[in-house]
Amino acid sequence: MKKEIPYKIYLEESELPKKWLNLRAFMDKKPAPLLNPGTLKPMTAEELSAVFCDELVAQELDETTPYIDIPDEIRDFYKMYRPAPLVRAYCLEKALGTPAKIYYKFEGNNTSGSHKLNSAIAQAYYAKKQGLKGVTTETGAGQWGTALSMACSYFNLDCKVFMVKVSYEQKPFRREVMRTYGANVTPSPSTTTNVGRKILEEFPGTTGSLGCAISEAVEVAVGSEGYRYVLGSVLNQVLLHQSVIGLETKTALDKYGIKPDMIIGCAGGGSNLGGLIAPFMAEKLQGKADYRIIAVEPASCPSFTRGKYAYDFCDTGKVCPLAKMYTLGSSFIPSANHAGGLRYHGMTTTLSELYHQGLMEARAVEQTEVFKAAEQFARVEGILPAPESSHAIRVAIDEALKCKETGEDKTIVFGLTGTGYFDMVAYQKFHDGECPTISPPKKTLQKVLQACQL
Amino acid sequence: MKKEIPYKIYLEESELPKKWLNLRAFMDKKPAPLLNPGTLKPMTAEELSAVFCDELVAQELDETTPYIDIPDEIRDFYKMYRPAPLVRAYCLEKALGTPAKIYYKFEGNNTSGSHKLNSAIAQAYYAKKQGLKGVTTETGAGQWGTALSMACSYFNLDCKVFMVKVSYEQKPFRREVMRTYGANVTPSPSTTTNVGRKILEEFPGTTGSLGCAISEAVEVAVGSEGYRYVLGSVLNQVLLHQSVIGLETKTALDKYGIKPDMIIGCAGGGSNLGGLIAPFMAEKLQGKADYRIIAVEPASCPSFTRGKYAYDFCDTGKVCPLAKMYTLGSSFIPSANHAGGLRYHGMTTTLSELYHQGLMEARAVEQTEVFKAAEQFARVEGILPAPESSHAIRVAIDEALKCKETGEDKTIVFGLTGTGYFDMVAYQKFHDGECPTISPPKKTLQKVLQACQL
Repeated sequence: MKKEIPYKIYLEESELPKKWLNLRAFMDKKPAPLLNPGTLKPMTAEELSAVFCDELVAQELDETTPYIDIPDEIRDFYKMYRPAPLVRAYCLEKALGTPAKIYYKFEGNNTSGSHKLNSAIAQAYYAKKQGLKGVTTETGAGQWGTALSMACSYFNLDCKVFMVKVSYEQKPFRREVMRTYGANVTPSPSTTTNVGRKILEEFPGTTGSLGCAISEAVEVAVGSEGYRYVLGSVLNQVLLHQSVIGLETKTALDKYGIKPDMIIGCAGGGSNLGGLIAPFMAEKLQGKADYRIIAVEPASCPSFTRGKYAYDFCDTGKVCPLAKMYTLGSSFIPSANHAGGLRYHGMTTTLSELYHQGLMEARAVEQTEVFKAAEQFARVEGILPAPESSHAIRVAIDEALKCKETGEDKTIVFGLTGTGYFDMVAYQKFHDGECPTISPPKKTLQKVLQACQL
Repeated sequence: MKKEIPYKIYLEESELPKKWLNLRAFMDKKPAPLLNPGTLKPMTAEELSAVFCDELVAQELDETTPYIDIPDEIRDFYKMYRPAPLVRAYCLEKALGTPAKIYYKFEGNNTSGSHKLNSAIAQAYYAKKQGLKGVTTETGAGQWGTALSMACSYFNLDCKVFMVKVSYEQKPFRREVMRTYGANVTPSPSTTTNVGRKILEEFPGTTGSLGCAISEAVEVAVGSEGYRYVLGSVLNQVLLHQSVIGLETKTALDKYGIKPDMIIGCAGGGSNLGGLIAPFMAEKLQGKADYRIIAVEPASCPSFTRGKYAYDFCDTGKVCPLAKMYTLGSSFIPSANHAGGLRYHGMTTTLSELYHQGLMEARAVEQTEVFKAAEQFARVEGILPAPESSHAIRVAIDEALKCKETGEDKTIVFGLTGTGYFDMVAYQKFHDGECPTISPPKKTLQKVLQACQL
């Protein structure tokens, strides 16, 4: 007899993963290396260590170690909010009238409000271990900035955050949360950096983007004694840390003998999706199992579905290395939408390569449809989702409705990356009908794609 | 050998209580009954049923049944966010350098952000069962209003919320969350009711109070076909539903053989504290065990520590029954502080009677000290607490520091009722040094106490 599946599957503390999973180690064809934009040669550890902590550089370049130990200090912090629950969406299934079985891995039960804390605490730990004074970073929706503030506060490190201006203005309280944890927060683009001033000259009145904010944070880190830059997404090291999401998800599913048919996650830079799918994709790469894997992105920033697989700068200011990725062009600044965390022009190299190899799918969704899904989900499942996470909800609901048509009882797992408590301006606009359907203007898109050809 | 205590003790879904605990049944001397203000005789079931749902009236008047079944429909909803974790505050203990062992029952892991959902879903269920169209209510900090909106949305009931004006203005996004769940929200006092207009005439420019908002909500419920009024605190029925907090806490402690020395909770109307202490106080009343029980209230609204034990109106508009309770006078409007959920002039009759019998203690704390504790807690334990909950944190820290002095390793349990994500205006004022030390002006207090003598 099968065990009855509870609403929430909680693992024991002892089942918290002891190692992260390094997805690249399972790939025959590895993601393309980061290139030095000056020499167009692969970035060396030495070059990277001017920007990143040494141990994180090692993780960034490690393509062969399949599992990497999670230090005890990090596991202790994880224990404050992990293992995160895997929830069976019984109420959503009922509301949809679908035979599909829907599960979501909920990463919002911590004050940063998202999965970002998983990598923030790791990066802060390695910075502390290296004896640094502090770190700089960028934040879009504010979740990464909050997470890093919390992590730095825990290890008593200084934390300087450049926050994408549109989020800074839409989410005044996010800044206050970061301040509660002792961080400095500057709206980006700002006049405090060379690159910020240059971007403001070129695009006056811009509401900013993750790409701009990254440039500013890197400039400050490189120019300050005892500081390094940390990034909440895109990098290999971040995907590595986020694999804790997928590892827990798989352990929970295995415990109840559940094999998912598809795994769905929103994708901005790719950190949550890369983490969620890690052990499943590893099985797929080894031919042990097959899963449909779907990345969901906003129609206003569709790097997978409308971008190009090419080397491009990771940041708007073009101070960072080049990465081979699906990109809309490093000078692409998406129109102001309400999912700040998905406003990134590119996609992490690992997922880009997997997508290129046809091992995963991608779908772009419109904002209004995303908020409809968010509200429907909130009303039956109780949790008020972040706009970013709601992209995954949209596609999970769409797939569940397809099952309703076909009568198939597929098992759908999606990542509910965070809560929307600081996104109420976005919800308000949706309620007031001020949530326009946004697609990228075709001309702009072509122009920036031409510009990013090397 | 003792089991190692994890950071978070999660119960299994099967350990979710099947019955609520009715604390009054364990009391030899019962709390005084509600009186009809016209006749000064105990309120009858018939009288109460004009305002409240029938089944809730029965629970309100039941002084003898020690345990009352939790209907399956309510338990199913509970399963979406319960059992709630009991957390060992290892990091706080370390930061304080105390030998004390600190635990907190965390009720903030749901979208209402607090324990309020425990009673909201019960009250909505009974309203639906009675075939009502909808319910009216008041909300202070907004947590109860959010909880009720969520519960009504789940059962497809209309929901009209009167929100204390100071919170309505300080927490614009709370209104938006309620709107996401389909509720109507009106700032109180409003001009939409007779009692609201009267209060506005008498106290122009008032920022409102729970007492005022209750009067307005009751007026609308009584005057609308198919509507009843529901209340998030103070009532016996609410304490009954909230006993789920204490029951889970006790089960979790018993599982690890832990016996607390003291139990600490913030007290506005008394719902959280009454729920948290229920099974412990029941043991104490039966002479089976002894615990120190400490209610914490704001210095600006100190009903236990500076109020009088007397019959008083439950609301400012004097349309509700009289309750014998510790009260500052039903016309007492506390100065604007940042813990809207604790701005109530009275205290639930059960806790009032227990306090009067010397079975529990009370302590009033200043706002600035509360925020200091909140920030200290947030930085080490990760969770950003609600200002209300932070009252309990303040006293838990104070007690842990006393243990540091004496070297005693006492076990402290406190209720962390909710999160402060919608209280960032309050945190901002604290950071900006705009968080004044507030005590009730002595003259006003005396005047209202005289006025409430019957």
